[in-house]
Amino acid sequence: MTTQQLVSEIHKKKSFLCIGLDVDLNKIPKHLLEEDDPIFSFNKAIIDATHHLAVAYKPNTAFYEAYGIKGWKSLQKTIEYLNKNHPEIFTIADAKRGDIGNTSSMYAHAFFNDLGFDSVTVAPYMGKDSIEPFLAFEDKHTILLALTSNEGAFDFQTKKIGEDETYKTVLKTSKSWKNSENLMYVVGATKAEYFSEIRKIVPDSFLLVPGVGAQGGSLAEVCRYGMNKNIGLLINSSRGVLYASNNLDFAEAAQAEAEKLQLQMEKLMHAV
Amino acid sequence: MTTQQLVSEIHKKKSFLCIGLDVDLNKIPKHLLEEDDPIFSFNKAIIDATHHLAVAYKPNTAFYEAYGIKGWKSLQKTIEYLNKNHPEIFTIADAKRGDIGNTSSMYAHAFFNDLGFDSVTVAPYMGKDSIEPFLAFEDKHTILLALTSNEGAFDFQTKKIGEDETYKTVLKTSKSWKNSENLMYVVGATKAEYFSEIRKIVPDSFLLVPGVGAQGGSLAEVCRYGMNKNIGLLINSSRGVLYASNNLDFAEAAQAEAEKLQLQMEKLMHAV
Repeated sequence: MTTQQLVSEIHKKKSFLCIGLDVDLNKIPKHLLEEDDPIFSFNKAIIDATHHLAVAYKPNTAFYEAYGIKGWKSLQKTIEYLNKNHPEIFTIADAKRGDIGNTSSMYAHAFFNDLGFDSVTVAPYMGKDSIEPFLAFEDKHTILLALTSNEGAFDFQTKKIGEDETYKTVLKTSKSWKNSENLMYVVGATKAEYFSEIRKIVPDSFLLVPGVGAQGGSLAEVCRYGMNKNIGLLINSSRGVLYASNNLDFAEAAQAEAEKLQLQMEKLMHAV
Repeated sequence: MTTQQLVSEIHKKKSFLCIGLDVDLNKIPKHLLEEDDPIFSFNKAIIDATHHLAVAYKPNTAFYEAYGIKGWKSLQKTIEYLNKNHPEIFTIADAKRGDIGNTSSMYAHAFFNDLGFDSVTVAPYMGKDSIEPFLAFEDKHTILLALTSNEGAFDFQTKKIGEDETYKTVLKTSKSWKNSENLMYVVGATKAEYFSEIRKIVPDSFLLVPGVGAQGGSLAEVCRYGMNKNIGLLINSSRGVLYASNNLDFAEAAQAEAEKLQLQMEKLMHAV
């Protein structure tokens, strides 16, 4: 998917919502556990109920790998279902990968070609040659961790390398990499005040923003400092949408939560 | 496996060799491609031929994920084969994972419980709460990226955060994490001169050292600066051993390469 297609979808749906498909078998409705593939059944129901309200879905690979081969099958079925039924949806493998060059190429192949995701999240620690193999794929997007939403972000990301905090150094350095136009960035919503600083460095890039809702970030604050002329934001909600109810009405409850977020987003888009 | 068991194995085998099981179907002998599971068949032959010369095996997960569910099955069969036939071998899932706390717990479960690895490699960018969930597992080891062997290591790892290079900040900070005694570190062999600096910070920890051989590092130099009273090194070789021949004699050729390395290691151990 091209960035322009994503921007069109955002305007069409008046939404920049990403739903994180982080399925925990301990939290889903009990009746689903009798199904052949409870994770896929849950995802399918969530997608069916919310796809008109969201522009992106983001399975976190950890929640699938934890169930071994069965989990990997659920992941594969989920991305296939999305690609077949909703090709207009932007798909994100939240995998946070990164390795030396020839190994990163294998990861890029796994997520872009084999599974067919539009994008994958990657970690910056190993630098340029660990990321460029991902960037080489046309119309695929590589989402680099910049400033994450967890407490540990303060261990290294906000420490200064010379003049700049590490996350700023990561942003600035990444702009020099080959095909850097295929980069997006992860920026946690729990630190809305950082968005204006980040927009000085990457005014045009899309930012994937976790941490709204369960992790405590404010949507309005993020939009105030982070939105650009293309909207430029994908706001992720996982637990808030997925586990709005754990009864038979879970999909309707998820839809209602997603709709609340979509309506807030519509208002915030008008305000720009 | 406990660290003490690993140390005993090293002394028994007079080897601190780790063999990286990074199987590329384009590089293995063609006759194996007719087998049901060429990756596992290749790994089994390599393990059978070299297990008396190596103390650790390290599959890099990228090389398995690139083949989807089939690849994940090959990984599972490989670790099961190792655990069943060679419980004395230290196993490393080279996965370079790391995410927010509850997600890292899922990864730890995947690699330690579900697959049954003794250790997993992790990336430090997301800080303390992304690593501590791994450290909570008893007799399991978490191998933190410190200074990697690729060119991109100079993008961030060797840049200074205040007084210290980033990799030193990572090493120092990680020592304050809960259960930090379960940490080992990845330190690339291509930068042997850094080992004496690293040993000032983590004198007792095991270091996993990629980059000897194909990537150009010197074994003797690494040992000179990096060895401690417990040896404290796991030197990884992947391509040099795996692809010593791509004919019918590939396993014997791999054994010969592994033996060369083991003999060099035996000499270097005597020199301590």
